[in-house]
Amino acid sequence: MNRMIKLLGTGKYLPNKKISAEELAEKIGVTKEWIMKKSGVETRYFVESETTAFMGAQAGLQAIQNAGLSLKEIDAVVSAGGVMQQSIPCTAALIQQELGLEGSGIPAFDINSTCLGFVTALDLLSSMITCGRYKNILLVCSDIASTGLNWEHLESCTLFGDGAAAVVIGPTPKDESSKVYSAHIETYCEGVNYCRIQGGGSALHPRNHGLGVDKRFLFEMNGMEIFRMASKTILPFMNKLLKTLHLDDIDLVIPHQASVMAIRIIQKKLGLENDQIVNIARHCGNVIAASLPMALHEAIQNHRLKRGDKCVLLGTSAGFSIGGIILEY
Amino acid sequence: MNRMIKLLGTGKYLPNKKISAEELAEKIGVTKEWIMKKSGVETRYFVESETTAFMGAQAGLQAIQNAGLSLKEIDAVVSAGGVMQQSIPCTAALIQQELGLEGSGIPAFDINSTCLGFVTALDLLSSMITCGRYKNILLVCSDIASTGLNWEHLESCTLFGDGAAAVVIGPTPKDESSKVYSAHIETYCEGVNYCRIQGGGSALHPRNHGLGVDKRFLFEMNGMEIFRMASKTILPFMNKLLKTLHLDDIDLVIPHQASVMAIRIIQKKLGLENDQIVNIARHCGNVIAASLPMALHEAIQNHRLKRGDKCVLLGTSAGFSIGGIILEY
Repeated sequence: MNRMIKLLGTGKYLPNKKISAEELAEKIGVTKEWIMKKSGVETRYFVESETTAFMGAQAGLQAIQNAGLSLKEIDAVVSAGGVMQQSIPCTAALIQQELGLEGSGIPAFDINSTCLGFVTALDLLSSMITCGRYKNILLVCSDIASTGLNWEHLESCTLFGDGAAAVVIGPTPKDESSKVYSAHIETYCEGVNYCRIQGGGSALHPRNHGLGVDKRFLFEMNGMEIFRMASKTILPFMNKLLKTLHLDDIDLVIPHQASVMAIRIIQKKLGLENDQIVNIARHCGNVIAASLPMALHEAIQNHRLKRGDKCVLLGTSAGFSIGGIILEY
Repeated sequence: MNRMIKLLGTGKYLPNKKISAEELAEKIGVTKEWIMKKSGVETRYFVESETTAFMGAQAGLQAIQNAGLSLKEIDAVVSAGGVMQQSIPCTAALIQQELGLEGSGIPAFDINSTCLGFVTALDLLSSMITCGRYKNILLVCSDIASTGLNWEHLESCTLFGDGAAAVVIGPTPKDESSKVYSAHIETYCEGVNYCRIQGGGSALHPRNHGLGVDKRFLFEMNGMEIFRMASKTILPFMNKLLKTLHLDDIDLVIPHQASVMAIRIIQKKLGLENDQIVNIARHCGNVIAASLPMALHEAIQNHRLKRGDKCVLLGTSAGFSIGGIILEY
């Protein structure tokens, strides 16, 4: 069943503080060349006073403006970031507050599948719109990676940045053809430990910080194992996602911006030319769940994705999960 | 649009360690009578070695068995607990692992609106099933409150317990009438601070524990303000949820088990008899997001909810949110 939904507008927010590969290299004791070779990320942005909800609200307001809507026309605020702002309540309620929506009663809730949050949420919310449950939904992915990075783990701390992106989605007008063609997600828990922050939840309360387990409160990543799982799963996964379509039918592939190198590997695996895939990681790093909608936003702003085009949104996440959605934009 | 979905089976899990009001009274320096008067919770269960994912998997396996299905027939594992097991990855991936689903590829993701997780998830997933995106979904709510409670805040620490509940939902068979009549959620961020754990996420990293802000890593609740907001919103909310139905059409009201007293207030506000509302909080306390599906499970097990009956699932959560869903079971 095609779900007739339309991306009405997109927006993004990057923190004010820009960090070059050179500056980061000095902080962590490597060379700029090492960072460029390993991560390919030349600049990333780190928050100073900005919060997850603040960034999300800025991206959200831009998306609402680009959709030609007003705040009052939004029927739900959904947050699909990879890391919560605080343990309770959900981040969407904090974003609602940043949007100044006191008294509105607009429902606010979170969806979480780490770096695949945007794909998972778009899949869920498309069904809500198709069933007539909501009309216009503001979907926000806002993530702060910098507070949880382990600066001694050079492979991961050179990849990430902070930022937010948002979309407004709604039902497709009667004479238009925007739709979800297909969506597919697979989770392989045998990779559950390849990408993790063990602390902060019910299993390891913050009161244990300082008791010899401090690294468990930081991001851990086994890049080689993730690469192996992604390599093994991507081609059979793509066949399930594409269904009756072929890659030749797709105008643009928008991958999760895991790293410049990871995107190049996807490009090679799928046999894509440079103009068929979006790669913004060099300019902002991996902004966790915000990566994919930020790449989507850039593709729209730069006229690389036009109305009527078919695009694949595609990524992997902690879990280990691989997921994607095919849209006619 | 009625969403034709059926609750195929339910399950629950309570930790092995049972704590009486008397034992808790001794721990926190009050009398048993004080606890019974304030919270009405006579027994609650606290985890020893059980994890969020372990409890969720136990409840999930029972739900799958009660649905007459096998693990292989589950198309998605969704976690809608109020507090994550760890910051990354999502709890559903950890539950998938506890279920022994390595290699299955079954998608796993989280939905979060604290105590309203079950209502929000049921609303979202009903749409997915209606659109044909998934067939049988295992929805798990598993929560450990005990690690985050402030034992000096007597009003809140006497209310909560740990536990899990789960349901399997699927499309309604052609000759049956199970359905979602309506669902409605409202979020009022002016109440965002009435119920919170400020730490553990991007705003206040666990490295700050021990630096004079330790209470921010514990659960805080302003019971009086929550009561005021719930009292103000519940009647207009119910009218929107009921739509063309009347309360007389409803066979059973299953509220979030916030506290014995809170449920009595709802009962009085809505003018319900004892046999029209489920109140299990006396026996297990408020198990956060697991409360509502656990009360649903008990109502089904005790034949208080029968096929063809109409029930309202109803609750409030941190946010501040109020939400509900009306089902024909």
